[in-house]
Amino acid sequence: MSHNTFGHLFRVTTFGESHGPALGCVVDGCPPLIPLEAAEIQAELDKRRPGQSRFTTQRREPDEVRILSGVFTDERLDKQVTTGTPIALLIENLDQRSKDYSEIKDKFRPGHADFTYQQKYGIRDYKGSGRASARETAARVAAGAIARQVIPNVTIRGSLVQMGPHKIDYANFDWAQVEENPFFCADPKAAAEWETYLDGIRKDGNSVGAVIEVVAEGVPPGWGAPIYGKLSADLASAMMSINAVKGVEIGEGMAAAALTGTQNADEMRSGNNGPRFKSNHAGGVLGGISNGDPVVVRFAVKPTSSILTPRETVTTHNEDTEVMTKGRHDPCVGIRAVPIGEAMMACVLADHFLRHRGQTGRDGGVGFA
Amino acid sequence: MSHNTFGHLFRVTTFGESHGPALGCVVDGCPPLIPLEAAEIQAELDKRRPGQSRFTTQRREPDEVRILSGVFTDERLDKQVTTGTPIALLIENLDQRSKDYSEIKDKFRPGHADFTYQQKYGIRDYKGSGRASARETAARVAAGAIARQVIPNVTIRGSLVQMGPHKIDYANFDWAQVEENPFFCADPKAAAEWETYLDGIRKDGNSVGAVIEVVAEGVPPGWGAPIYGKLSADLASAMMSINAVKGVEIGEGMAAAALTGTQNADEMRSGNNGPRFKSNHAGGVLGGISNGDPVVVRFAVKPTSSILTPRETVTTHNEDTEVMTKGRHDPCVGIRAVPIGEAMMACVLADHFLRHRGQTGRDGGVGFA
Amino acid sequence: MSHNTFGHLFRVTTFGESHGPALGCVVDGCPPLIPLEAAEIQAELDKRRPGQSRFTTQRREPDEVRILSGVFTDERLDKQVTTGTPIALLIENLDQRSKDYSEIKDKFRPGHADFTYQQKYGIRDYKGSGRASARETAARVAAGAIARQVIPNVTIRGSLVQMGPHKIDYANFDWAQVEENPFFCADPKAAAEWETYLDGIRKDGNSVGAVIEVVAEGVPPGWGAPIYGKLSADLASAMMSINAVKGVEIGEGMAAAALTGTQNADEMRSGNNGPRFKSNHAGGVLGGISNGDPVVVRFAVKPTSSILTPRETVTTHNEDTEVMTKGRHDPCVGIRAVPIGEAMMACVLADHFLRHRGQTGRDGGVGFA
Amino acid sequence: MSHNTFGHLFRVTTFGESHGPALGCVVDGCPPLIPLEAAEIQAELDKRRPGQSRFTTQRREPDEVRILSGVFTDERLDKQVTTGTPIALLIENLDQRSKDYSEIKDKFRPGHADFTYQQKYGIRDYKGSGRASARETAARVAAGAIARQVIPNVTIRGSLVQMGPHKIDYANFDWAQVEENPFFCADPKAAAEWETYLDGIRKDGNSVGAVIEVVAEGVPPGWGAPIYGKLSADLASAMMSINAVKGVEIGEGMAAAALTGTQNADEMRSGNNGPRFKSNHAGGVLGGISNGDPVVVRFAVKPTSSILTPRETVTTHNEDTEVMTKGRHDPCVGIRAVPIGEAMMACVLADHFLRHRGQTGRDGGVGFA
Repeated sequence: MSHNTFGHLFRVTTFGESHGPALGCVVDGCPPLIPLEAAEIQAELDKRRPGQSRFTTQRREPDEVRILSGVFTDERLDKQVTTGTPIALLIENLDQRSKDYSEIKDKFRPGHADFTYQQKYGIRDYKGSGRASARETAARVAAGAIARQVIPNVTIRGSLVQMGPHKIDYANFDWAQVEENPFFCADPKAAAEWETYLDGIRKDGNSVGAVIEVVAEGVPPGWGAPIYGKLSADLASAMMSINAVKGVEIGEGMAAAALTGTQNADEMRSGNNGPRFKSNHAGGVLGGISNGDPVVVRFAVKPTSSILTPRETVTTHNEDTEVMTKGRHDPCVGIRAVPIGEAMMACVLADHFLRHRGQTGRDGGVGFA
Repeated sequence: MSHNTFGHLFRVTTFGESHGPALGCVVDGCPPLIPLEAAEIQAELDKRRPGQSRFTTQRREPDEVRILSGVFTDERLDKQVTTGTPIALLIENLDQRSKDYSEIKDKFRPGHADFTYQQKYGIRDYKGSGRASARETAARVAAGAIARQVIPNVTIRGSLVQMGPHKIDYANFDWAQVEENPFFCADPKAAAEWETYLDGIRKDGNSVGAVIEVVAEGVPPGWGAPIYGKLSADLASAMMSINAVKGVEIGEGMAAAALTGTQNADEMRSGNNGPRFKSNHAGGVLGGISNGDPVVVRFAVKPTSSILTPRETVTTHNEDTEVMTKGRHDPCVGIRAVPIGEAMMACVLADHFLRHRGQTGRDGGVGFA
Repeated sequence: MSHNTFGHLFRVTTFGESHGPALGCVVDGCPPLIPLEAAEIQAELDKRRPGQSRFTTQRREPDEVRILSGVFTDERLDKQVTTGTPIALLIENLDQRSKDYSEIKDKFRPGHADFTYQQKYGIRDYKGSGRASARETAARVAAGAIARQVIPNVTIRGSLVQMGPHKIDYANFDWAQVEENPFFCADPKAAAEWETYLDGIRKDGNSVGAVIEVVAEGVPPGWGAPIYGKLSADLASAMMSINAVKGVEIGEGMAAAALTGTQNADEMRSGNNGPRFKSNHAGGVLGGISNGDPVVVRFAVKPTSSILTPRETVTTHNEDTEVMTKGRHDPCVGIRAVPIGEAMMACVLADHFLRHRGQTGRDGGVGFA
Repeated sequence: MSHNTFGHLFRVTTFGESHGPALGCVVDGCPPLIPLEAAEIQAELDKRRPGQSRFTTQRREPDEVRILSGVFTDERLDKQVTTGTPIALLIENLDQRSKDYSEIKDKFRPGHADFTYQQKYGIRDYKGSGRASARETAARVAAGAIARQVIPNVTIRGSLVQMGPHKIDYANFDWAQVEENPFFCADPKAAAEWETYLDGIRKDGNSVGAVIEVVAEGVPPGWGAPIYGKLSADLASAMMSINAVKGVEIGEGMAAAALTGTQNADEMRSGNNGPRFKSNHAGGVLGGISNGDPVVVRFAVKPTSSILTPRETVTTHNEDTEVMTKGRHDPCVGIRAVPIGEAMMACVLADHFLRHRGQTGRDGGVGFA
């Protein structure tokens, strides 16, 4: 992983700020001959798009994506396919309304990257936070849409599983519910309760954190690698690279610490297609390599730092002051992180699929005779 | 991060299995003219060495390290220093006692990487688990000892903060206590209680998980990078790459989800040397870049999978069976993960120090006029 | 170097085909606070632009570049500067005139990458050759313009030094002449003769190869690295990655083989600012590291493969046929390779500058007391 | 390519100096289940070993290689195979005879990297030149022996084709002759003449350069990549990274400049297994991708810089002096570069094989129906 690139064989490089002319990404290493239309990418982007409920920012970002390269419509195939060369995706920034920056130009907003960008670079883009804006994640979602096409047998889905202190009840878990509420939540009962809760948070000018769970089904055994290229390590890095993420878990996650060895290790039984696991504490990854069970990742998103409550801070000249971040912000930025988490899962898996195929010549495990 | 290499400018490549002739690492990119003796590396290795109490495996691994390259004793400097070229470190495996593998050769041990290695590679080293052995981490600790010399102003310390369900009380936290008990625990009261607890676990032929906290003090503002090169993302990957780790947290970690924006964002006040933060929910990282506060990382280690309790599993021929892992194993492998976590922190920080210096020409932030 | 990215700290990723909507690049890792205007990049692009004389293709490509990201106009600095985040550059393709592809759609043109793309990917973009088009090099030139700003004390200049069998006379060498003829040739006498020669080639429907020399002055001692990161190795890779290049030389190049040790090794004498070399057979690189002398690289470009003379070839169905490539092509594509070679030199040097600074904390050598 | 690592999926990291305890390499990413014995690697090393004739240095380096990791002898397979994990190879330095360094400790030897190492790092290993010693190439040859096993259908052979000004006559070219003379020369007549020539050079205390040609037969169409990952670019980098190399050519190389388009482009005819080329000016690479023809690379090695003739130089204190490099040196270091060039070819091809397989799922081209 370099600063703005991730992945080895399926490589994603993103660029762009929220208040510049455009943002986008370059996806390099995609296999050739994969059908790809802009509409498929657009569908994923539309899931992430803000302004879809009162719980996400009211900024209007049409986020219309163009494919600039890497595809070709061969007359004999009669459809657009990838060529194996870099796929550049571009999203123009249209909603750059003029805005008063005097409040934040000379103040460091607590919880934001204002102070650290200034210290690192000696300059910061105070119009929209530059690269620290969550808008960068649109490029990830677009790349993730391509990654999904690379591993069509893998189903990747995400759900909000905790908002503030309120967790879902996994007994109610139903993937079909995710699109039925404004929270991407698989527990309809929790979603209903959260609506009232989040309205309160929003009206208080406050914000709240969340936990997202992303599950990949259909990953064959064998993806990943033993040491620093562990599937789990790359997933941890991918999720932690999303704005505002402060924790990442695979399978049991932090709770694994409280278990005993007899509780935690997933026992096995013989099955028709080889061994199967009786439980999935591991979250589908053993020794950094997928075991054929669903890959389960959770990550925590901190509460939106831009809030309507004044907070103590300092000016860029090191003088005490207060700041209150006006503007159109999400009371729970974690909601929109659901499709982003899915996209990162897709990109990491696509990359490991290609890496595994490169080293072994197989798409998955050796199987059972 | 590739399979067995991590870091960009301070790059560590490890090799070796627990039952082969030797293991070690190559550290590339180390700055020149840094004093380095094998004894300094040995001191770190000795912390990790097993067999130091009844709570760690009784295997005898002297883990004696040799520096094979990358250093030079200039007569005019009168001490051994790095030359800027790759530093190879070698640890011979001496305790390769002949052992009966018949029990595990044909069975997949639950919680182990046996099944996944077999599926990925079509072969697995059933003598000592090959690369999946925690023995690989000796090479990380050795590399970490060099990394510490690269960033001498940064103090990196770790503590066990949870064993099984038992957490420390941070009111008792005292770094000086870490070396006073067999658990690397900064809370002496907790350490005393854990002794009885872990004895029980051990006598039951069971094992238990743990949480480790690693703190780096003295990191200046500015290390890290905005997007995929976030300091937090690289730390997440580094910690998740350690054997048996299932969760990683920065600052508040998973608990950030339950906070509100007013609670979570660290307010600032002016100080003599520029702004200071009133709290450290962020764990020293904002927008992926260090903010000058201590960098705080926690990670959860699952319970040792090798236990003396029989577990259901299958043979390599997909037949139902049971397995019980005899031998010399740690009842809480998390204990020995403390120096490993410190080493990974050191390596990640050394790498980001060099990357930051490369891009900006500065060692830290721009400071305040 | 990955497929479409080169450089480590100063990293360039390019994308785009000649007949798609656009091409461009993302430059990651650029230091912050470097003044950068689109006009500066445009000036370099205009040098490479075709259609400037009868000796380069008559395609009209305005090649207007837009900076999409990575810059900011701070009111207090009153000029646009880099922010340290990725700089995306975009060039729209305007001259996509409809064309008859029936001739080349089903035939492999000799000397072109038609056959190899088809074999590798199972598909090839027969409209403009996809990534094999020299149009990709516009992105390199744009990136090179940024690289030059990163190392402002280094002067990078190129000259055609051979066209077909006709070499320049170095006795006539004068950098000021490069812009006075249509060949970027520093020898005005040779340039005058080449005009007649190339007219003949062009009228015959033929083409011819060339050798380009690129010289970087002002490189301090110390850039580069001993083994696989040799400055010379990265330059070789960079130049060989340019379309149609078949050979690369540093200093004496292939001619070094014919020299004896007494002839070849550059003797040294003491100078006011440390040792100086009495000759520069080395081309400014010793052991992979710059020695302070001008860095001298030459590379050979093969004759343009698109010629108006019919050649034997096969169809995509493996049937014998002939092909003649009509259209607007350069009789000596090497001419336009001069600014491309300069750009690659600039990018490689900028990258090594940052890498050296990262490892050592210095901009150049240790100097002399 | 980083400083001491090359390759992406087949990655080689080397370490060690000629006068330290040992040197070696770590080969990461090798496919599993490839038969590998130390004896196979040793056989390649023995080709490169010095002291085999009066034309190579009389240093005695037994260069005995040990495989430290990455292999396993499965009882059921009954032979040692790779496991897919990193293969570490170690060669102890035995011939570290004490030597008088006073002559070179304080002087920069012309043509050597003494000056540049000192400037870059502020320190240099004057005992044996540290990493600048050609001894590092033993690790390359060892890695190359593994690479050959990864691509068993590819035959890689090298020959000296020029010594000083004396070129071979390709009419006499016979691979079987390479092992029949002390020069790895495929032209027996040239080899016979060189013997007298090189004796003269040696007796004069002088040295001479050489050109090596390496040919890989059996490479299928499709290996390589269009832009910065061109097979030709990676070969150029690999060869230029060898000590003392100043020029690299693919196919026609620098001579391509003198050809016309009608001469240079390889015409095609239909064949039984798809198209075949009537000539191989391209050297087996078109657009950076292999075309199925032999891959032909040549590189020039400068004359050995260590000669018995006094040369002007300066001291480390910038004072004029002379230096004469006594000791056991090769009069034509290019001779021993033959197996090194073969090894680099093998490593680059193995890497591109795996990269191609990762992206496309195929071992070679799509073939012809």
